[in-house]
Amino acid sequence: MYNIGKIIDLLNSNLNSIEPPDKVAMKKALEGIDNLTKPIGSLGRLEDIAVKLSGISGKVKNNIKKKNIIVMCADNGVVEEGISCCSQETTAIVTENFTKGITGVCVLAKFYGADITVVDVGIKVDLNNSKIINKKVGYGTKNIAKGPAMTKEEAVICILTGIETVDNLVKDGYDLLGTGEMGIGNTTTSAAVLSVISDLNSDIIVGKGAGLTEKQYSHKKEIVKEAIKVNNPDRNDIIDVISKVGGFDIAALCGCFLGAAKNKVPIVIDGFISSVAALCAYRINPLVKEYIFPSHLSSEPGAAYVNHEIGLIPLLNLNMRLGEGSGCPMAFNIIEASLFVINNMATFKEANLIKEHYVDIR
Amino acid sequence: MYNIGKIIDLLNSNLNSIEPPDKVAMKKALEGIDNLTKPIGSLGRLEDIAVKLSGISGKVKNNIKKKNIIVMCADNGVVEEGISCCSQETTAIVTENFTKGITGVCVLAKFYGADITVVDVGIKVDLNNSKIINKKVGYGTKNIAKGPAMTKEEAVICILTGIETVDNLVKDGYDLLGTGEMGIGNTTTSAAVLSVISDLNSDIIVGKGAGLTEKQYSHKKEIVKEAIKVNNPDRNDIIDVISKVGGFDIAALCGCFLGAAKNKVPIVIDGFISSVAALCAYRINPLVKEYIFPSHLSSEPGAAYVNHEIGLIPLLNLNMRLGEGSGCPMAFNIIEASLFVINNMATFKEANLIKEHYVDIR
Repeated sequence: MYNIGKIIDLLNSNLNSIEPPDKVAMKKALEGIDNLTKPIGSLGRLEDIAVKLSGISGKVKNNIKKKNIIVMCADNGVVEEGISCCSQETTAIVTENFTKGITGVCVLAKFYGADITVVDVGIKVDLNNSKIINKKVGYGTKNIAKGPAMTKEEAVICILTGIETVDNLVKDGYDLLGTGEMGIGNTTTSAAVLSVISDLNSDIIVGKGAGLTEKQYSHKKEIVKEAIKVNNPDRNDIIDVISKVGGFDIAALCGCFLGAAKNKVPIVIDGFISSVAALCAYRINPLVKEYIFPSHLSSEPGAAYVNHEIGLIPLLNLNMRLGEGSGCPMAFNIIEASLFVINNMATFKEANLIKEHYVDIR
Repeated sequence: MYNIGKIIDLLNSNLNSIEPPDKVAMKKALEGIDNLTKPIGSLGRLEDIAVKLSGISGKVKNNIKKKNIIVMCADNGVVEEGISCCSQETTAIVTENFTKGITGVCVLAKFYGADITVVDVGIKVDLNNSKIINKKVGYGTKNIAKGPAMTKEEAVICILTGIETVDNLVKDGYDLLGTGEMGIGNTTTSAAVLSVISDLNSDIIVGKGAGLTEKQYSHKKEIVKEAIKVNNPDRNDIIDVISKVGGFDIAALCGCFLGAAKNKVPIVIDGFISSVAALCAYRINPLVKEYIFPSHLSSEPGAAYVNHEIGLIPLLNLNMRLGEGSGCPMAFNIIEASLFVINNMATFKEANLIKEHYVDIR
């Protein structure tokens, strides 16, 4: 179907254009922040955010103009194992609902003035909806408890779809991106991927997703173990792992993180699935970390491990587990608040205070 | 100067009018939330916030109209012991700066559309500024390392000032309040108060405030121990503790929390000083907790203990230690987002999904 050599070349050319952050801009930004009228370092992570954005943009002062949350939607064959409380049709129904503005992420995005991009990377049915971008790689993945979810070619195509989605949004002027997903069964696939690429036992990573009884929860843990055993993915080859035990959504979101780094735009993690995709991107190219911002700490147990692995600390502690990208709008807002306060506070001199009186305890 | 019997009576009449939250409204609010199109409980603390607000207002659906951050400003005699990197005049300078809109809290409040109320409860100098409410109880407290900070009468007057400030803001239509402070030396007094009313050794509560060298930091710890030894406050009598080792700002903020509960309006904690004041109010009347919202986890070490003592979990994890009320605007915004998402999401029925498919795992 695809020429694997050609698409791998295309992916590599994208990866090769990812650059490290601009350390000079970061240094100048911090110098400016340290002249503002406050105990040195006392705005904590609001300062770190502003400095990180300087590294990304190469500019000392920054502003956000347009925000967008990319929601990658796809079905997972493993649902036939009974690992979710929801039926598979839920993926298509909720994906349609995104275009009606009625789901959690839609309402939060509206509150914060962010747009949403809904992409079908592999829902089991055809959705004839002009508000959904059709990038279908297949009609759902295969059941990972029995064999690989997809071919390696399909995994790379999904990653390229994520990169291309970001390319297009950046062309449209978006300068702050978020990541979300919809796909019944995707906490199962995400747990399988994370378990393989971390040193963690899958039992402590698997969560209850949208809601499971204790019996269903035990079964879900068994299915994740079975998927890893059956497929035996190579933990050092992220594309092998995603193609064997992942999903189209995880692959496409992984591409979004790579694409944001390539385009030098900040990108926000939402919940567990998007966290796992971010970790995959980080393993493919560690520079990606410099372009990623965390949002909240999902109550899915695996999310905390991903943050630890990448070295990110969530900004918000809201015990959310909705997915959809619903944590991104609030993180967008904190990023914007960070820039606003740094860009608008007075300096020590303007405030009639003496910087040298303050001991730097960072 | 004051008739202690009369002011204690006035305080008690205020305390007696504090009522428990409306459990019926809370139950109805939760029922509504559980019909929204999402895994049950998956919006986590955004749901908890909306339910808590129903308990406060007695209404199932709520909206915030006007937000205000009360900044209590006062000087502390203990500064003569060299426990701060800043000179005492800094209190007056920064208090004036609040009225110019140039400090951290001012800029963040502007970003989030909140107003600020600056109150002089005891700055060492007279500030002739019409934008500062003059409620001076004294020209700074006395040095707690040598004796009590203030009289019991002064402490009660400060608490009543906090209650009155809230009364007036509520009359002006404010329905979401925040708490902040300015007072060089007030991390020292707050640490002393917290150490007395908790079971914690002051050494693990005392922090570096605006910035201290290791030598100054050790000295600050000694001064807190000395203040407690010299004054020997009665840990079961909050007014005794505040008057002996606290400050005018802590007392007035304690009054703000009591006043918010009396007026049935939500009130947000900022950093360490405001946390300690909240704990004092909670000890005076535990119902206060039902009206209090946390904001961020201050990096001052004592703040985490206060949250634990009251049983609150910070919404934000930003490593801030500026004070001024600077954490409140962001918490205001999360509270508003909570109400917006709960008030505007579709129900399961409207979204073509079946509630009974979702297992409730809360």
